[in-house]
Amino acid sequence: MDIVEFVERSIGEWRSQRSVHHLAFSYFEEVTSTIHIIPVSPDDPEVIALCNSYEIDPQTITHPFRMTWEGESDWDEKEKVEGKTLLIPVPDADNSPRGRLLRDQGYAETIPAVAHYQIGEDGVFVLLTEYDRAMAEERIWFASDHIRFRVSMIKTSSGTGITTASFSSEIRSLS
Amino acid sequence: MDIVEFVERSIGEWRSQRSVHHLAFSYFEEVTSTIHIIPVSPDDPEVIALCNSYEIDPQTITHPFRMTWEGESDWDEKEKVEGKTLLIPVPDADNSPRGRLLRDQGYAETIPAVAHYQIGEDGVFVLLTEYDRAMAEERIWFASDHIRFRVSMIKTSSGTGITTASFSSEIRSLS
Repeated sequence: MDIVEFVERSIGEWRSQRSVHHLAFSYFEEVTSTIHIIPVSPDDPEVIALCNSYEIDPQTITHPFRMTWEGESDWDEKEKVEGKTLLIPVPDADNSPRGRLLRDQGYAETIPAVAHYQIGEDGVFVLLTEYDRAMAEERIWFASDHIRFRVSMIKTSSGTGITTASFSSEIRSLS
Repeated sequence: MDIVEFVERSIGEWRSQRSVHHLAFSYFEEVTSTIHIIPVSPDDPEVIALCNSYEIDPQTITHPFRMTWEGESDWDEKEKVEGKTLLIPVPDADNSPRGRLLRDQGYAETIPAVAHYQIGEDGVFVLLTEYDRAMAEERIWFASDHIRFRVSMIKTSSGTGITTASFSSEIRSLS
């Protein structure tokens, strides 16, 4: 599977169940949300602007997409969990299983982050993002056309401590 | 990584946080438990008996181990979650990343089940177990020497429906 197939299979509306494990405290957090993954034109002004901010040639990108999510956490029921981000894959070469993923907003911090992805022979998409003081690793794979799983973990930059791990089951909303 | 290294890294006491996603109902279940993984001698009478019951030559097995777990689920706080099982790896050949895993008790049903494992180049141990009317897939990997993650899912035999998925974070108890 290459990045094009991965993005194409991801397009749509997903109902997500996410469990966050706060490892130091053996604490569980539960988040229920709706995720939309929508294709964006490579010519879109926001795509061009994001490429420019990373000094990436827009000719080398493929299949940009936008992800939005809206949901609720059992930690703070008053506060909505919501956000959106623009993502742009930049494969190392055509059909390469590796590349970079540009984002206009990181998950863990608000500074723009460039992440590196790799798609394994088993079809698992692995994404590594380095932040100032932390590193995020995400593993995403399809159990079927309509079920996607995602495991994320946040490590300290030194790599010794893993502070949180989370698991999402994402079911396609067929409507 | 081969099965010997995988078993050796797994030996010890683990504190486990497990989240079960009941997909049809978007329902969360939380289980906290302590897991012990203990090496067992290949000459142990229970090991020989389990090999015999599957007509496996005890000379072809490696590193049998016993797993016990004891914990609590938030579904039924009165009932303890506990159990134990004897596991025997039978590699397809020396140093092979594939093989069978004998168990004296399955997770999902009580009949003995023979499972097939494969360790990927990324070090992820994948275990497939077929039951009468269901199939279980488990993926286990080490994030560090002291943190193990495990994703399990139960599919219907036809392969179309995934009924539950679960995620465990297992932290080694250093004592």
